[in-house]
Amino acid sequence: MGLRVIKAPTRGPDDLGPLGALEAIGLAPESVVAMVAKSEGNGCVNDFSRTLAAYVWGSVLPASAITVVSGGTEGVLSPHVTLFADDASQAATGLVAAVGRTAAVPYPELGRAAHARLVAEEVGRLVGSLGVSPAAVRLVLVKTPLLTSEKVSACLAAGTPAVATDTYESMACSRRAAALGIALALGECNQEQLDAGLAGDARIWSSVASVSSGAELEDCHILVLACHPSGGSLRARHVVMKDALDLPAVAGMLSAIEEEGGRLIQLFAKVEADATGSVRGRRHTMLTDSDIHSTRHARAAVGGMLAGLVGDGCLYVSAGAEGQGPAGGGPVTAIYEVSA
Amino acid sequence: MGLRVIKAPTRGPDDLGPLGALEAIGLAPESVVAMVAKSEGNGCVNDFSRTLAAYVWGSVLPASAITVVSGGTEGVLSPHVTLFADDASQAATGLVAAVGRTAAVPYPELGRAAHARLVAEEVGRLVGSLGVSPAAVRLVLVKTPLLTSEKVSACLAAGTPAVATDTYESMACSRRAAALGIALALGECNQEQLDAGLAGDARIWSSVASVSSGAELEDCHILVLACHPSGGSLRARHVVMKDALDLPAVAGMLSAIEEEGGRLIQLFAKVEADATGSVRGRRHTMLTDSDIHSTRHARAAVGGMLAGLVGDGCLYVSAGAEGQGPAGGGPVTAIYEVSA
Amino acid sequence: MGLRVIKAPTRGPDDLGPLGALEAIGLAPESVVAMVAKSEGNGCVNDFSRTLAAYVWGSVLPASAITVVSGGTEGVLSPHVTLFADDASQAATGLVAAVGRTAAVPYPELGRAAHARLVAEEVGRLVGSLGVSPAAVRLVLVKTPLLTSEKVSACLAAGTPAVATDTYESMACSRRAAALGIALALGECNQEQLDAGLAGDARIWSSVASVSSGAELEDCHILVLACHPSGGSLRARHVVMKDALDLPAVAGMLSAIEEEGGRLIQLFAKVEADATGSVRGRRHTMLTDSDIHSTRHARAAVGGMLAGLVGDGCLYVSAGAEGQGPAGGGPVTAIYEVSA
Amino acid sequence: MGLRVIKAPTRGPDDLGPLGALEAIGLAPESVVAMVAKSEGNGCVNDFSRTLAAYVWGSVLPASAITVVSGGTEGVLSPHVTLFADDASQAATGLVAAVGRTAAVPYPELGRAAHARLVAEEVGRLVGSLGVSPAAVRLVLVKTPLLTSEKVSACLAAGTPAVATDTYESMACSRRAAALGIALALGECNQEQLDAGLAGDARIWSSVASVSSGAELEDCHILVLACHPSGGSLRARHVVMKDALDLPAVAGMLSAIEEEGGRLIQLFAKVEADATGSVRGRRHTMLTDSDIHSTRHARAAVGGMLAGLVGDGCLYVSAGAEGQGPAGGGPVTAIYEVSA
Repeated sequence: MGLRVIKAPTRGPDDLGPLGALEAIGLAPESVVAMVAKSEGNGCVNDFSRTLAAYVWGSVLPASAITVVSGGTEGVLSPHVTLFADDASQAATGLVAAVGRTAAVPYPELGRAAHARLVAEEVGRLVGSLGVSPAAVRLVLVKTPLLTSEKVSACLAAGTPAVATDTYESMACSRRAAALGIALALGECNQEQLDAGLAGDARIWSSVASVSSGAELEDCHILVLACHPSGGSLRARHVVMKDALDLPAVAGMLSAIEEEGGRLIQLFAKVEADATGSVRGRRHTMLTDSDIHSTRHARAAVGGMLAGLVGDGCLYVSAGAEGQGPAGGGPVTAIYEVSA
Repeated sequence: MGLRVIKAPTRGPDDLGPLGALEAIGLAPESVVAMVAKSEGNGCVNDFSRTLAAYVWGSVLPASAITVVSGGTEGVLSPHVTLFADDASQAATGLVAAVGRTAAVPYPELGRAAHARLVAEEVGRLVGSLGVSPAAVRLVLVKTPLLTSEKVSACLAAGTPAVATDTYESMACSRRAAALGIALALGECNQEQLDAGLAGDARIWSSVASVSSGAELEDCHILVLACHPSGGSLRARHVVMKDALDLPAVAGMLSAIEEEGGRLIQLFAKVEADATGSVRGRRHTMLTDSDIHSTRHARAAVGGMLAGLVGDGCLYVSAGAEGQGPAGGGPVTAIYEVSA
Repeated sequence: MGLRVIKAPTRGPDDLGPLGALEAIGLAPESVVAMVAKSEGNGCVNDFSRTLAAYVWGSVLPASAITVVSGGTEGVLSPHVTLFADDASQAATGLVAAVGRTAAVPYPELGRAAHARLVAEEVGRLVGSLGVSPAAVRLVLVKTPLLTSEKVSACLAAGTPAVATDTYESMACSRRAAALGIALALGECNQEQLDAGLAGDARIWSSVASVSSGAELEDCHILVLACHPSGGSLRARHVVMKDALDLPAVAGMLSAIEEEGGRLIQLFAKVEADATGSVRGRRHTMLTDSDIHSTRHARAAVGGMLAGLVGDGCLYVSAGAEGQGPAGGGPVTAIYEVSA
Repeated sequence: MGLRVIKAPTRGPDDLGPLGALEAIGLAPESVVAMVAKSEGNGCVNDFSRTLAAYVWGSVLPASAITVVSGGTEGVLSPHVTLFADDASQAATGLVAAVGRTAAVPYPELGRAAHARLVAEEVGRLVGSLGVSPAAVRLVLVKTPLLTSEKVSACLAAGTPAVATDTYESMACSRRAAALGIALALGECNQEQLDAGLAGDARIWSSVASVSSGAELEDCHILVLACHPSGGSLRARHVVMKDALDLPAVAGMLSAIEEEGGRLIQLFAKVEADATGSVRGRRHTMLTDSDIHSTRHARAAVGGMLAGLVGDGCLYVSAGAEGQGPAGGGPVTAIYEVSA
């Protein structure tokens, strides 16, 4: 049984067209273990494109499959779906994936230590199930909940103020907790550092985490992707952008892939607006723009850079990189295929 | 007398700090012939950052100087000012510039043939005054008016419906007319082609035009920049991006500059959302996003790509490239300096 | 068989909770003839809250039922659903409703005469089926399609330029055509006037039309609501606001209802930003705000006024009143119940 | 010397047209003590319409005059200026005003007790200077600073984390501190209650405060308006809306004014999105809308209600009512004139 990774564009959040691409390689919807999409909403609190996609795909995929829909295809980014599927006709393909879901995250614990622990335990379990070392992991993709006005009020009524009263800010807290849980599970930090990270220490981060947040779920959906020594033509690399202008880091990875004769299938990138208000000493205005949230700005800008590099807008570029790469930067994972 | 080109960041639309950079090379505000800025508004109809910058700078610059303030520093783009100044202590520097203003554009003629003609005549005059051939021109930068609700109503009352009733759309019409006027003046099209361009033929365009539109003026402010055979250390190149992913075109120009030993001073780029709704076959959502206008998306995306290439967010990236480069693409001019 | 009208709040676009309110009066989902909702998207082109609601409700309602989801609950407006249901246990209730759908609107005809004709024919048929005169009609609610980038391109490829290339503007054209079709069917205008209305004559309008536009459908969904002489406790009145400040008109209608001892069930209002750029001589900025579309402004403002009058944010306030009431104003229909 | 209050529309943030209205009653710019405006920006962090208006008016008004520019004319609200001027030709007019400015608010103290104290002291001084009791005060209008990204970073660098890292949230903290300072000065709360209010207790508030926040100043500009027993034809009343639907409270005040034979000159209202996420049990979506900030929603909605009541969009409606009236509601002050 080998993993297959397929990328296909969508005509809207409710477009199941990518199932045709799956069928074209002889696979049925039941083979899907993870559906990872970029949909065309604002990627913020009230992004119903995510909910719509999760609904429609949930009706055709097996119950065991996870769905990670990340909103926001600003600029040249293009709505699409990446399907991870098990192909019984294939031997090992070089990459392995495991997926799982945590218990529902209690609202008062969202963004806090218990939330990180839930994620860490599930990631640990998934890595173990793959029989690989943490060093072989190339990507841990997580969808994590957020707090709506109603949930913030419920927390208050229950006697535990929510981690954030601002609904948009709750997305950042949720991403940070999940990312630090990943870092803990992979040995990128210890418990003490995790606590520091939750308290705001931006030096604690994972180099393979990609976490996005949404109102369409109550638990965390997790995908762990790793290289497997058994070999095959599918491969993955990862690199960490040090800031939003770090084109050379990604260009270097793409060159290495090219040297291997690899054909790029997909990039997974996390990006963010530098919290200091500047990038390489140049003031940016993403944090003072009250018309457009900074996550939208960041996706558009870094998405434009990455799409320019690979000549394709169908990239998984997700914003809000708390605990994912260094402050202002973010991890990038490439999945590619070499000739057999 | 030699032209100097200085770029300096700003702390806000009303920041005159760049005058300090001018002073540092021994020049007074009176030496400025053109102030070209990116300010941090939305770059659309109600962008008062442009008006504010024009006000504040207008109070310190000579009456003969033109001000071109382009709104919108989305993503990693950074607010800044580029000053073009005459330096009496210098001999020819390799680049020459001429600036001028048209008469006020009558509202009913905005975006129409008479508007294009006004621009063409002034550009022609300016090129002539520089004593260079059209082929030596590297950049024609224009600020052109737009129509507010009041002006649209005034047109209607006067019996000539405005070129567009939507105020945001009037910006596009105004840019197109001015750009085609430039193309005509430089021999990039003839009168018949200009008319076709005004009627929507996207194959008629200039390769050195950069036009932005704003509510802060009634006439057109024009800067013509050209290489001059007399020599010097300042130089300029231009290239045309064929679409919003055309990183190779710009990378090629930057490589050529590097081979000359050049140090980049500034990039001037025009960008736009492809009107077909896709880029290289990938659907984009810039034209169906009713929360953010497509010009903001396009600046963020292509700005991110260009800033990644040069490692600096202080770039002049302006959106809405009607008549400026091919559909979906846009011209890019680089000003750089080589060691003497 | 009597018509019942039930209003219930929703927790999100996918909340089927209102079915509980239906069940509470002994009715099953199969009894529903029309679901009319306000959902919490932007109400513009990329409003996926509409699609989500239509998708979820479509799975539980009978195929004959129509769904009209209007996006945008700005300000104090509150997401909710109004269900029109047939109650077999009831005799005539005073109001009657008929629903229908047109054929799909061909893209090149959207916003044009053929589109208006499709609507006029179906409205005429529905009024006839109710056995009432046009004068008895209190509300004609229509959901009509819009043009996406893809559809605009398809029109161009097919040789007939779309009625509008701007996707947001296509919504207005679509609303106008449908509203004028209603006016024609009800004898509020003749064919010649309809043509004038399509050409922009704002003096041609219906006093009972309420049309909204969305990407979630290809045909038009239509609800005709009328008073029926057979009597009963359900009633409806309508009034036309002359502009966005016309509180007295609505207050007068509410007073009349109060005098009848009526209990308000729901208001259906159409609103818009005055195209002249001012209301009663005061300049408004809804048409020059490039950050928020004017339809969002108008819903928030008039919705706030109406909600203040009735003390309830669950009102059907829809924006874009082309052909619906006079320029800058719009029709308002009230459904209420008097004691038996 | 008598106070005159004049309201005049503006054609843009830089329109000095209202000086003409002043001149029409025989007064020069030097007579102005306070310029209070609504300008057409987003009213949030990057609202340069405020800066532009402050810049232009600052150049013509006496140095002693204060300028309070509140951004945001959503919906039917209309940009305008209200001028408070001293008329030497008049005896007492019934209303008196005093204006002042605090010292600059140190960034780390913004939104905290020291900030409230600065305001309290100046308000106390101004009330004393008028020779009236706190009960005679009808309005205390304050413009207070906010934190930009740079200032947030400066706080961190200085060792005292800013009251909020989110720039938009800093506006709310700043308004709350200033409003509580007003409440303290007028005896509406004591020091202990002020501290509780700063800590989030929404039961501590002023009934005459109107505070807005902006990036265009570093200190606080304050206007105190009071009734004076010496008599005259100018009068003021105030009322507190209990929530965003409290039309009856304002209607009652307007009726009382009408009974006095009063002609309304201006309304000053503070409004906000209820933090619980609902108004009178109906969910609102102002706090989960990531495309439009809740202050813009609230101004549009309550502004629409108030403008409908008085038939005029030139009203001073400002959003963010922290410490100003009860949670979800806000104070409203009316200035009117009775026949002599």
